[in-house]
Amino acid sequence: MATKDINNLEDLFMHQLESMYYAEKEIQKAMPKMAQKTTDSALRAAAEHHLKETGSQIQRLERVFKAMGKSPDMADCPTIEGLIEEAEEVMDSLSDKNLMDAALIAAIQAVEHHEITGYGTLIAWARQLGRQEVVELLEETLQEEKAMDKKLTQMAESKINRLAA
Amino acid sequence: MATKDINNLEDLFMHQLESMYYAEKEIQKAMPKMAQKTTDSALRAAAEHHLKETGSQIQRLERVFKAMGKSPDMADCPTIEGLIEEAEEVMDSLSDKNLMDAALIAAIQAVEHHEITGYGTLIAWARQLGRQEVVELLEETLQEEKAMDKKLTQMAESKINRLAA
Repeated sequence: MATKDINNLEDLFMHQLESMYYAEKEIQKAMPKMAQKTTDSALRAAAEHHLKETGSQIQRLERVFKAMGKSPDMADCPTIEGLIEEAEEVMDSLSDKNLMDAALIAAIQAVEHHEITGYGTLIAWARQLGRQEVVELLEETLQEEKAMDKKLTQMAESKINRLAA
Repeated sequence: MATKDINNLEDLFMHQLESMYYAEKEIQKAMPKMAQKTTDSALRAAAEHHLKETGSQIQRLERVFKAMGKSPDMADCPTIEGLIEEAEEVMDSLSDKNLMDAALIAAIQAVEHHEITGYGTLIAWARQLGRQEVVELLEETLQEEKAMDKKLTQMAESKINRLAA
């Protein structure tokens, strides 16, 4: 969908949905490479868990497209490209494994926050459009993203940042 | 600072600080154009208030550079460029003023979330480095960003999204 076709709130919702669909697909491609960067077994397990969740989140987005009577499509999302570029740039420049873990957590949390704001917007607009089944699907994903963010904060504060210092 | 110079947690902190400094400067440039897009007086006032806050946040970052014994410098932040590009692309494609307001709130909230995660990371690393005065400066900014995000959610839910539907 070209952005010039945005004439009502449903169009705006669909554009944001397509942007998130593209973002999740990019995260699915980038996450395995990021997970391989860590030597911390708990952090690797968390990254791999999130990769599985991303797969479910993509399927959920496809169910949302279907509920909206549309086929899955993607809109450009230069933000997710920027997030992945920044993460790769920083991680490629580090050799110390403890610093790597601290940088990796920061990078994944930046991605999580982009998803938290994106899903938050989609949910608010779906609610306004009276699409309760869509709200419920997207809420499930939003709660997973928030839980992942919280888990990473706990890992950073309880161990990873201390080892990096 | 080139990312290849990251050898310890202080270097990693400085790189992230330079990235946020660049991001805030880009937001300062983009926000007036975004504020002009809305015809809603409360939303315009909120955007203008945030522009003023951004000025204070830049000064606070400069105090952090000083506290760290460094001169202010900028690192690339392709994420903020992506966020601004996405915001401008969507808003340039809208003509309806109520849809514009809904899109504008979503765009500013995406920027806020990038700042919330970025400052959260900086605070965690400053705490680990034992830089209490830096923690306090950055906490002040983080609370402003969270308050702005909350205010925008309230504006969207109480009025803007309803008008856009």
